[in-house]
Amino acid sequence: MARLKLKLQVMCGDEIALGPGKADLLEAIAAHGSIAAAGRAMSMSYRRAWLLVDAMNRCWTEPLVATSPSGAELTPLGGEVLEAYRALATAAEKSARGASWAILEAALRPEPQPAQER
Amino acid sequence: MARLKLKLQVMCGDEIALGPGKADLLEAIAAHGSIAAAGRAMSMSYRRAWLLVDAMNRCWTEPLVATSPSGAELTPLGGEVLEAYRALATAAEKSARGASWAILEAALRPEPQPAQER
Repeated sequence: MARLKLKLQVMCGDEIALGPGKADLLEAIAAHGSIAAAGRAMSMSYRRAWLLVDAMNRCWTEPLVATSPSGAELTPLGGEVLEAYRALATAAEKSARGASWAILEAALRPEPQPAQER
Repeated sequence: MARLKLKLQVMCGDEIALGPGKADLLEAIAAHGSIAAAGRAMSMSYRRAWLLVDAMNRCWTEPLVATSPSGAELTPLGGEVLEAYRALATAAEKSARGASWAILEAALRPEPQPAQER
């Protein structure tokens, strides 16, 4: 089941408003209550986590993350957008694993053959 | 409609057996009849196109591309795999554009707001 990877990106002009990495960051912020702690949990610098949050906040009609001196949390829109994105990805993956996935899976090797001398 | 991007990767161990770029290359080989011409049509070096074909050919139970002195063409399996991949991607995209996409689309700006001075 792990051999099909699906990546959904929601674009805002040329910027990625939400994709797998940003969705994981939103989840980590909700779990850890701060951008710094969420970044650490994802082995990401504070600067990088902050830049991702800033990009998200500029791409949507309202910010997805609210910061205060005591930390950070998802806004109501942040929660809704994250939930909608996960639902979208689940629906897409379920569809993709329909009929034609069996054709691909049957013809796929578990590991690539080694490159041949030529 | 262009603001949702979906990328499907079929994995063979750690190698990408098929993804958007490799699928486009298969199509170009079918259209142009050679790896070199397909690479040129995609602004890709012959070496890079050849390496992608080689990776694909090692990931599946049979090669997807057959080469001969007169050029290259998709094998029957190559044609089937390409068709199944496109069907999968279409199904996944259709699902993704279902109910929860409307939530995201309604909350998305057309372009990011400029970064603020802080």
